[in-house]
Amino acid sequence: SDDVKEYENYFGVTLLDRRSDKRTDSKWLSEKQSHPATVYILFSNLSPLVTLRGGRESSHQPEVKLCRLHHKDVEQYMNQSEECTLIFLGVELQFDANLMAAGNGRVLQEDEDGLVAWFALSIDSASAEKFKQKHEDCYFLHPPMPALLQLPEKEAGVVAQARSVLAWHDRYRFCPTCGSVTKIEESGYKKTCLKEDCPSLQGVHNTSYPRVDPVVIMQVIHPDGNHCLLGRQKRFPPGMYTCLAGFVEPGETIEDAVRREVEEEAGVKVAHVQYISCQPWPMPSSLMIGCLAVAVSTEIKVDKNEIEDARWFTREQVVEVLIKGNQCSFFVPPSRAIAHQLIKHWIGVNANL
Amino acid sequence: SDDVKEYENYFGVTLLDRRSDKRTDSKWLSEKQSHPATVYILFSNLSPLVTLRGGRESSHQPEVKLCRLHHKDVEQYMNQSEECTLIFLGVELQFDANLMAAGNGRVLQEDEDGLVAWFALSIDSASAEKFKQKHEDCYFLHPPMPALLQLPEKEAGVVAQARSVLAWHDRYRFCPTCGSVTKIEESGYKKTCLKEDCPSLQGVHNTSYPRVDPVVIMQVIHPDGNHCLLGRQKRFPPGMYTCLAGFVEPGETIEDAVRREVEEEAGVKVAHVQYISCQPWPMPSSLMIGCLAVAVSTEIKVDKNEIEDARWFTREQVVEVLIKGNQCSFFVPPSRAIAHQLIKHWIGVNANL
Ligand SMILES: Nc1ncnc2c1ncn2[C@@H]1O[C@H](COP(=O)(O)O)[C@@H](O)[C@H]1O
Ligand SMILES: Nc1ncnc2c1ncn2[C@@H]1O[C@H](COP(=O)(O)O)[C@@H](O)[C@H]1O
Repeated sequence: SDDVKEYENYFGVTLLDRRSDKRTDSKWLSEKQSHPATVYILFSNLSPLVTLRGGRESSHQPEVKLCRLHHKDVEQYMNQSEECTLIFLGVELQFDANLMAAGNGRVLQEDEDGLVAWFALSIDSASAEKFKQKHEDCYFLHPPMPALLQLPEKEAGVVAQARSVLAWHDRYRFCPTCGSVTKIEESGYKKTCLKEDCPSLQGVHNTSYPRVDPVVIMQVIHPDGNHCLLGRQKRFPPGMYTCLAGFVEPGETIEDAVRREVEEEAGVKVAHVQYISCQPWPMPSSLMIGCLAVAVSTEIKVDKNEIEDARWFTREQVVEVLIKGNQCSFFVPPSRAIAHQLIKHWIGVNANL
Repeated sequence: SDDVKEYENYFGVTLLDRRSDKRTDSKWLSEKQSHPATVYILFSNLSPLVTLRGGRESSHQPEVKLCRLHHKDVEQYMNQSEECTLIFLGVELQFDANLMAAGNGRVLQEDEDGLVAWFALSIDSASAEKFKQKHEDCYFLHPPMPALLQLPEKEAGVVAQARSVLAWHDRYRFCPTCGSVTKIEESGYKKTCLKEDCPSLQGVHNTSYPRVDPVVIMQVIHPDGNHCLLGRQKRFPPGMYTCLAGFVEPGETIEDAVRREVEEEAGVKVAHVQYISCQPWPMPSSLMIGCLAVAVSTEIKVDKNEIEDARWFTREQVVEVLIKGNQCSFFVPPSRAIAHQLIKHWIGVNANL
């Protein structure tokens, strides 16, 4: 139907089909690992290896893009140390098997499925140094945020997936149930405790699977329909205001989390809540759930522990900043952040929701 | 506006305002802990203590309800052992301070805020045995599911919150970053590693906060608008069919998780996805995100590792089972499960979505 539009937010578009069925297919995986068409993306300290597209020679603004490496580029770094982690990300969504083979100057073998597999490889700092010395045009993109927002839209989704899983391995090295060491399984998507009688081995437990933290982020609308509530944290650049946000708590609905966070942070009461769209946020592994929320009170009482300031902005003020690009009074996050999309969505919504 | 209705699912309605600002207010907390109006709910092995309302004497069907205990009932079990955990749940939403005081035969003191605080107390098995001997009309409601669905709607939300947090402490006893022991803080909502130089102590890390697992659950609609896709797992009671569901993966949107799961489990391709409502599911701590999904392919290929069967059911078949209560061919989960609500929602939706 016409009234339900789906949004595609940055980090939410991906090049890959995850093919989780292949995660336990060790024969297929080892063939793909050494296949010349397979793509590797490299990480060090959770930062992806990138290069500049359209560099000095080109007349265009240089653009950051992922370095797509191959087996020959990375094999010497694999299994180098305990800190080396390999994650299977999926296979390319669009492909033409023969075209792919031809591109590599080969004829497709009968037993080949023609799928282009992608892996993320995380290497230790020493290996990363060595790699950079050999490949001068590449560098690790850090600090992660907002540098990660420089990636092309389609590559962002792959990085979100890889970085979230790698961050999980980084932070969840030990079994939280018994404190023992764990081993990685299912191409990076499972972690199993190595203590034989650990309760986490009886039945299925979430301790063995990657963690995803649901977060609500909301564009709060004034009861008059013509103002919205934006706030700022101390650590933000001066002048930046954005939507309020917070983690969903155990046993809480999305809608109640929105109401609780708005009341906690700004003292404003919200009634109606409507889901708009979501965005994976790989810092380390959140799922930002974007909503529109209608306030039923207007007095603001800022909780100084959580935010520095919160204010009602008029529709005109927001249009000035967002559409006309006049950012002298305040500014909002870049268009690749879901907050920007939520604010923009509200501008388009009829004043009387 | 009229077209956006908000759903209130079981486990999603709560009696309490969480008042997270009080979680670090040790003076207030210790006063409330011993206050005669404070309500304690008791858990043993993640099962809540309940009793039957309208028992033998009444002509009504007996109903399960939470035992609301007071400080005098539980103080001897507090701090008995390491396995004893106390969680602050919040304060009652509706209250009349003077009424409350009068109900307890008291006049409100000047320094009292009149708020009725709730705590969850989890005790070890030995204490649970002792308690049951003293209170013959009470028992621990287990196995948790579907027994938990017997609770009154309003109490279910409190149990969802308490059980999720307790399950987290149960499974996350050790620091996943370094394997050391941890201590509970902020009235149960934070866990801090006791190893001084643990990286989890630098900055904010999700290892210190309760885990909530986002799950998508979807009513998949046939391209003709008049059939829906329901499936069953081997462990279900014979004849039960329900919506497909699965965990959201790292770096994935809600909409893509719906598409991936439907294709993985049933081989059906989905295009448009629409969020409907959500439900906390405290087994141990999921957030079920309910969607309507429109299929663009119809051939079913069941992945036998994940489910046992999946079929297209006609609207008439579903109406027969859901509205007319004629469950001879198949049946669906009870009305307190979000799957039931999603299926029911679809029946009400115009055939041509
Ligand atoms: N956080 C998680 N908790 C439990 N199972 C998970 C999680 N994430 C992924 N899984 C997978 O989902 C399966 C259980 O799904 P279900 O049968 O729907 O409960 C497990 O066998 C795992 O393969
Ligand atoms: N899963 C979580 N990860 C990080 N912080 C959390 C989590 N759950 C709750 N919190 C709280 O949220 C605060 C950080 O929120 P924010 O400033 O929005 O990143 C922390 O100080 C915690 O009190």
